Formats: sequence, C-alpha cells, structure tokens
Amino acid sequence: MEKEIYLDNSATTRVCEEAAQKALEMMTEFYGNPSSLHSKGLEAEHEIQYARKIIAGSVSAMPEEIYFTSGGTEGNNTAVFGAVNALKRRGKRIVTTAIEHSSVYEAMQELEKQGYEVIYLPPDESGCVRTEDIKKAVTKDTILVSIMAVNNELGSVQPISAVKRAITAAGSPALFHVDAVQAYMKMPVIPKKTGIDLMTVSGHKIHAPKGVGALYVKKGVRIIPLHYGGMQERKLRPGTEAAPLICAMGRAVEVYDRQQGEKIKELNKIFRQRLSEIDGIVFNSDEGCLPYIINFSLPGFRSETLLHFLAERGIFVSSGSACAKGHKSHVLEAMKYDDKRADSALRISFSDENSADDANIIVNNLKIAVSTLASS
Amino acid sequence: MEKEIYLDNSATTRVCEEAAQKALEMMTEFYGNPSSLHSKGLEAEHEIQYARKIIAGSVSAMPEEIYFTSGGTEGNNTAVFGAVNALKRRGKRIVTTAIEHSSVYEAMQELEKQGYEVIYLPPDESGCVRTEDIKKAVTKDTILVSIMAVNNELGSVQPISAVKRAITAAGSPALFHVDAVQAYMKMPVIPKKTGIDLMTVSGHKIHAPKGVGALYVKKGVRIIPLHYGGMQERKLRPGTEAAPLICAMGRAVEVYDRQQGEKIKELNKIFRQRLSEIDGIVFNSDEGCLPYIINFSLPGFRSETLLHFLAERGIFVSSGSACAKGHKSHVLEAMKYDDKRADSALRISFSDENSADDANIIVNNLKIAVSTLASS
Repeated sequence: MEKEIYLDNSATTRVCEEAAQKALEMMTEFYGNPSSLHSKGLEAEHEIQYARKIIAGSVSAMPEEIYFTSGGTEGNNTAVFGAVNALKRRGKRIVTTAIEHSSVYEAMQELEKQGYEVIYLPPDESGCVRTEDIKKAVTKDTILVSIMAVNNELGSVQPISAVKRAITAAGSPALFHVDAVQAYMKMPVIPKKTGIDLMTVSGHKIHAPKGVGALYVKKGVRIIPLHYGGMQERKLRPGTEAAPLICAMGRAVEVYDRQQGEKIKELNKIFRQRLSEIDGIVFNSDEGCLPYIINFSLPGFRSETLLHFLAERGIFVSSGSACAKGHKSHVLEAMKYDDKRADSALRISFSDENSADDANIIVNNLKIAVSTLASS
Repeated sequence: MEKEIYLDNSATTRVCEEAAQKALEMMTEFYGNPSSLHSKGLEAEHEIQYARKIIAGSVSAMPEEIYFTSGGTEGNNTAVFGAVNALKRRGKRIVTTAIEHSSVYEAMQELEKQGYEVIYLPPDESGCVRTEDIKKAVTKDTILVSIMAVNNELGSVQPISAVKRAITAAGSPALFHVDAVQAYMKMPVIPKKTGIDLMTVSGHKIHAPKGVGALYVKKGVRIIPLHYGGMQERKLRPGTEAAPLICAMGRAVEVYDRQQGEKIKELNKIFRQRLSEIDGIVFNSDEGCLPYIINFSLPGFRSETLLHFLAERGIFVSSGSACAKGHKSHVLEAMKYDDKRADSALRISFSDENSADDANIIVNNLKIAVSTLASS
C-alpha cells in the first residue's frame, strides 16, 4: 500500500510514541487506584500529579486549577452547565457565538429550553465574531460568556481578549469560558492574561489518546459539578481517574514541540499556493486563520465525493467537523455561504508529521478529481 | 524487592496484556476519529463496533443497548439522573439502599436536595437489603429503583431479582437500575432475565484500563442525557469515543476467564480458614458474599495502621472503599458496627492472579502485626 497522508489532525491525531508508552506503563505497571491508601495507589497518584503539573504549566496555571475530564465535550459541558447553575440567581442571559463546537452549541440549545436567553454572535466574512458585538451583547444580567479560541472548521481566531473588558464594562457577574480545544499548544492562550475563568482543552488533538482532556478552573471560581460520587478531582469530577490517559496526555504535552508553529506556517503557505492552482477553488479559511487549518470549497463537487475520492488514494481530510458525521455544518450555515460553496467544503488540518510533499500529492489528486468527477 | 501481593482487585486491577496491546494498537495504528467519514475513521468505528458486540454479548444484550461511558461513576450518574429526569412528571419517589457506591449514593443526596423523596433501604446483618423491604418501599409514584448487584465493601449479593416483581405489583412506572460494577463477569447478571432497565459496568475492575465503562439501556427505554454535543453513542453520550479504552475493554472481556469462579471460591475458602487463625478476627463478609471479596476487622487495630504495615511488606489491601480515601465508610455505618469494628475493617479482593500462597503470606504478616503493633 502507498504511504498514507493524514491531513485530518483537527479531527484527531495519532498518539505519539512517548504518550503511548506512558499509557502502557500506567496500565501494566503503575496500575494502582490513585485513591488507594497504599503505596501502589500513591505511585499512581504521583504520576497523575506530575501530569497535572505539566498541563498546568502549559497554560501558565497552577496545578490545583486543572481538573481532568474525559475530553473536550465533557469539559465544555461541565464549564457551561456548571457556570450557569452556579450563577442562575444572578441572571438569565448567556453570550456565545453561532460557530461554537457542538458540545457548547447543543448545551446552549438545552439551556434555551430551560428558559435562558442565549445570544449567538454571528461571524463576519473572515469567520470571526466582532469585538463591538461582544461589547454590545454583554449586559449586567449576563452570567456566562462562552467563546471558542479557534473555530474547529475554519481555524478562525476569535477576539477573546475583548471579552473580559466587556464583562467589566457591563458590571456583569458573568464567568468567561473559552473552548480552547483547537488552540491548545498551537497558539498561546493564557487564562491569567486574558481573564479567562474556565478553559477547556483536549488531549487527542495534540497526540495524546482519545478519552481525556482538562478543564482549567480559575482559583476561587466555583461551578456546580455535572457528576456526583467520590472525592476525585476535588469532587468536581468524581470517578476513578483515567490514569493511563491522563499520564499519556501529560507526556504528550511534555514532548510537544511548541516551536513547530513556524514550520506549520510555512507548510500552510505552500499548501495555499499549491491549492490555488486548482480551477474554481474558494478558500473559506482566510489568511488570518490558525495555520493548522485550511478550509476550502470546490463548488460543484460534493464534499463527501471528494473526501472519498481522496480516501481511496490514502489521503484523509474532513468535510466540516468530524462530530457532525455528514450532517449540515451549523458553522458554514452561519457563514451564510450559498449551498454550492457549503456543500463542497473540505478541511485539511496539519500536525508536525505533515510535509510539503503532502501538498503535491493532495493537489495532484484534487486536480484529477476535478477533471474526472462529474460536477453537480 | 520481594514479590508484590496485590489483594485490592475490587479497587482496580492490573490491565491484562491483551487489553493493553489493544489500547496501544488503537493509539498508534487505528487512530482515526470514529466519526470521520474516511476509511481511517471507519476502521476505528469498526473496532468500536466489535467491542460493543463483545460487551453486549457478555450480558446477553443487543449491541444497540450498550453505551460507552468514562466509567462506573458516569454510568451510575447517567442512569440515575437520566431516569429521574425522564420520569419526573410521574412521581417524586426513589428507592435505593443505604449501602450504594458513592456515585449512586451522592447522586441520591443531590436528588433529595432537588425535592425528591429517597428511600434508603438498610442492610441486614449479612449486608443485604431485605426482599420484604423492597416490596414495601416501591409504590405507585416511585420513578426509580436503583440497587447494586454486589456491595463493593462487603461483597454482599443484593436480592435484585425481587425488584421487578415489586415494581409490577405496585403498578409503578419506575425504571430499574443496577450498579453491576462489582458483579460484572464475576456472577451472572442478565438484564433481560432480571427485568433490569439500566445497568452500569466498568472496565478497570476486570483488567481493562481505568476511564471506560458501559451503560446498558434496555431497548425502548428513554433517559435524558447528562451531556450535550455530537452524535456519538446516539447522543446519549456525545464526545469523541475513547477508542483505545473501549477496544481494550472489549478485549479484556473477550479474554476474561469466566470459569475462574470455582478457583476464586476455593481461594476464598483457604483465605477464610487461614484468616480465622488470627486472634480476635471478626468477618464482616459472610459466607453468602461474592467470593471475590473478604472484609474483616481486627478490633483494637486501626485499618490504616494495618494497611500501611502490610503495604510496607508489599501486600496491598483496602480499608473500605478506595473512593472514600480514608473517610468514614457509609456502608459500615449502615451495618451499625461499633466503632472498634468499623475502624479496623480491611477488605481483601481477588483476581485470578492471586494464589493460595498469598493467604499464607498475608496471614503470617497480620499475625506479626497483631503481636507487635500496639492495640488501641
């Protein structure tokens, strides 16, 4: 078989060797229950403490501000419902965007059913919400502002640095949540600096295994847990800790090359240049987007047809968000693209395992697709 | 270093080689996002389907009745809150026991705060709730009965087969949930046969990794999800599937030797015989308990002192439940033991990795402890 070209790293990544080995070690050697009082439990607990320190350090936070979760969805749900339930006596208004990940977006729809007023800020043509809109939306009775750092479909970077000022200016009690799943390790998002109260990150987008993430909760901020049970994660997230995954995530963060940004930027430039050779291509990600993601359309060709054409040739890309599994993307809908553009969108997303060669191969194959597939 | 003797298998187990290798394979080879539309995603999805089939088979259920969770706590929470929220218009009464695991017990305490009436059935002197008590407690406006199959501290087997009859006799709309975490694979609990609507199992008690479990939801039963987001697990449990853990759990179940019960029964007999040589020992687990667990007290010696004495000698046991981490056990409290008995309780719990030799070693060391440690 030919070499596989994996360009779907915003959906998930291959677990790096170091993280996989750490998980293995935790499963078969340091397998004690971290809550057990004996030394077999303590050694597992120490491993988790180490991972917590590494992950805290990666966002300039304190270890006690990091709570391990089962991933981005649980993190976002815990933050959104936890904040709203903690502040429900202070107001009924929530501010978010129309382009959040489904784990924030669907949580918001549920809160609307419960009687909350949710403001969904629309994106501009570059896929970003506007600073002025944030300012106007946040009022005195707003209890939560939840805005993603980087959109998962477009890569558009949201103006989260404006949020804290808007909350302060409005004299609002709102907690400020950031879904940083796509941004984590790829651009600096420092809660202390940006005034973030709650921040979600996930492991499997940065070469850690699926099934683990972390929620940053600023010291002193109290939210209501989603789960009830044991004393783990100071009761915010009870249940036996997923030690193999947590420690693997610690290891993945530890070995992550934060200098790779420059390489990815260069890669992005090469891909855009080569892609622009294709007849009729329209870029949906603009140049201000996080360089890890390029979303583009080939109007007249359906995303899924192109995706399968490429997959048959060992090239893996995405049509919109993986979580949507073929359903219409609410993000592209919010962008108000016409059907032809929305229905032909493809997302390619990088990790440091990709190279400029990959650009040649995908572009050559897309050219073949465009010239051989029937356009609709 | 001497050989370690791990007798804390009800807290957690060592991951078996087959399961660990499967997790490794999923992390580094079949690493696609199961929701991705390309073949890399599909191959991960197929692996998960296979695990689902194996786990469904292990409880004689259909694959579509199995929902993967992050473990026992999430499973129990999803079942309890999910059932109550689905039936809240039908009644306010819930029946459970005073000896549930904290992930049911604390969920019930939260529901009491929300205005539900929770009946906590007390255990008899053998650690089991009474069939008559179940019958009396279930009324027409009861919406949930949640009773564990096997108590995690004592190993006492609960009369769950009486529940369905009680619900039917009362003409109650109640859903019937069983926390089968300690029973799973160790005794037959077949939802279809017992009339169970919801059943929680966990991976890490049966040599699968920590961080994964499954919730059985009887076909046709509708509960309200705890989490909102993507389409995964038919929206009952959204979020990227923890594929490495799920497939490792499938593998652990697949290779689990269900014939080991006889061996463990024999082992239990040998341990009880040898333990009874120790002056002053009182058994808290009676002979009807699941043979995997023996709980006993050495009145006058504190559990933690004994536990650490043994741990220094490479022998790992538990004082009550690992989740309680040194806190007073609500189970032993419900048993109404005097302080001396409750404060000196130790739990040993087996897997098929234990042997009769382990009995000699722990009993010899406990004899030394009793003769050298100052009794309080």
